[in-house]
Amino acid sequence: MRIAVVGAGALGLYYGAILQKAGKDVYFLLRSDYEAICSQGITVNSVDGNFHLPKVKGFRTASEIGTVDLVLVGLKTFANHLYAELISPLVGSQTQIITLQNGLGNEENLADLFGEEKILGGVAFLCSNRVKPGVVQHLGEGRILLGEYVRESKSRTELIAAVFRDAGIDCRIVSDLQYSRWEKLVWNIPFNGLCALMLKPVESLLLFEPTRNLIIDIMGEVISAANAQSLKKNVPLSLAEKMVASSKRLGHYKPSMLIDRLEAHPLELDAIFGVPLRRAYEKGVQMPRVQQLFALLQLTEKD
Amino acid sequence: MRIAVVGAGALGLYYGAILQKAGKDVYFLLRSDYEAICSQGITVNSVDGNFHLPKVKGFRTASEIGTVDLVLVGLKTFANHLYAELISPLVGSQTQIITLQNGLGNEENLADLFGEEKILGGVAFLCSNRVKPGVVQHLGEGRILLGEYVRESKSRTELIAAVFRDAGIDCRIVSDLQYSRWEKLVWNIPFNGLCALMLKPVESLLLFEPTRNLIIDIMGEVISAANAQSLKKNVPLSLAEKMVASSKRLGHYKPSMLIDRLEAHPLELDAIFGVPLRRAYEKGVQMPRVQQLFALLQLTEKD
Repeated sequence: MRIAVVGAGALGLYYGAILQKAGKDVYFLLRSDYEAICSQGITVNSVDGNFHLPKVKGFRTASEIGTVDLVLVGLKTFANHLYAELISPLVGSQTQIITLQNGLGNEENLADLFGEEKILGGVAFLCSNRVKPGVVQHLGEGRILLGEYVRESKSRTELIAAVFRDAGIDCRIVSDLQYSRWEKLVWNIPFNGLCALMLKPVESLLLFEPTRNLIIDIMGEVISAANAQSLKKNVPLSLAEKMVASSKRLGHYKPSMLIDRLEAHPLELDAIFGVPLRRAYEKGVQMPRVQQLFALLQLTEKD
Repeated sequence: MRIAVVGAGALGLYYGAILQKAGKDVYFLLRSDYEAICSQGITVNSVDGNFHLPKVKGFRTASEIGTVDLVLVGLKTFANHLYAELISPLVGSQTQIITLQNGLGNEENLADLFGEEKILGGVAFLCSNRVKPGVVQHLGEGRILLGEYVRESKSRTELIAAVFRDAGIDCRIVSDLQYSRWEKLVWNIPFNGLCALMLKPVESLLLFEPTRNLIIDIMGEVISAANAQSLKKNVPLSLAEKMVASSKRLGHYKPSMLIDRLEAHPLELDAIFGVPLRRAYEKGVQMPRVQQLFALLQLTEKD
């Protein structure tokens, strides 16, 4: 099985390297990190043990890779306008495409380009940073909730999950991908948003009562919006308190949006804020706090 | 008429200097600026014309001033715990006290200490900065809406208004001081709050559509809270659009809370956010955006 990784940041490099280490045939589409990775390979410094892959199949263009069986999309969502250019040469009649990206709207955009039956989504719970070209720091977690975009889970879903599991990745199949996407947003919207806005790690927001209460209120808004989306089951309101409690052990963890802002990269605002706000609005649900956070984060991008 | 100015920052110095220039008998209670003002006097650089007062009656303690007829309170509200110490020696049986401070709760606190019949409030619309000890930059406006705290407007209210008017200050008597306080909060809460949080002047927030819309939404919350307070008349919702339109000419103006943050001073959060939020909550009105802004501003003070 030929697997292409498109978007070789912290997430793409991590999962791609794990799969290659387990003997899978992995092709990395690389841009700025091409030279470094082709000469020095990929290093993963991980809480689960460090490893180094000296030889990596790196390519500058998708045409050099050609069609593959599986495309793993790990692009930052602000680069989604490059989908056609980066992914089309990889896609044959049997190719399946999994987006492991953040937020909402990615499956939809891929489906528009490549046909909805080809698309799966994975909600990745992964704490990792790309510390320099070809070097990933894996701080914890790594499990994937894998779901079909429009079809019922079938044998192909099981086959793909098995590829991840063979490599030691905790991969569970979910019957309602949108439920898992919204569930992750319950965490991502307050923590990515507030940490990026305030330039503070998770812990600073959780240890201060007014902002801890704010996080719970924001989570409540996201849960209300989720439960207006005709998901197969409701997201329980108690998830907010549970997530806050379990996030305390993250300490000085910097969510990806904070790192993006510190490194003066664009922020993934549309996928994490814009699309969820529009989906809520379409169902008549207001998210005043989320909307405020979105407006202020957009302002920071105007600097 | 002996007039004491307590809190000789931008506002206290400005009104005190204007009154002295008009021949009133003004006593300034000074702390850190005592030396500079006693030796060099007060300079007002104003859009209405510059002037200098070489000789000023400055004192280090209220006891040295003794009782006066009128106390003008211009303290930053985070110093309100000093009311008793700073004001008591100035107050005799005939003394009247006017707070020109920001936000809500100041009249109440003064009334608790000195009796409610002694208290008046002035809502000051003044753009001024204290650029160094004894030097005020007056950028525009300056009118005062003067009201009794608990009594009906009476001859004494007219007498005090006449003192301001004699000095050329536009001073109108209002029958409902609380209405004017809330009306000013409709401006102060979004502009002081957002400018201080984002470290940006008024214009940056107004010229960007998402934050301009946010300002209008925040103003809507404050207007709803105001209209739950049994004011003599309702604050019209149209005030929001009107204030946004008229604020555009303020350009790079930095509201006081932004200046306080830039100068690493405490922020007037309780008077401008905390008390209004509690008053709204008591009436069953939610202000989710205001509450969020309050929480994030409190977090900035923890640095």
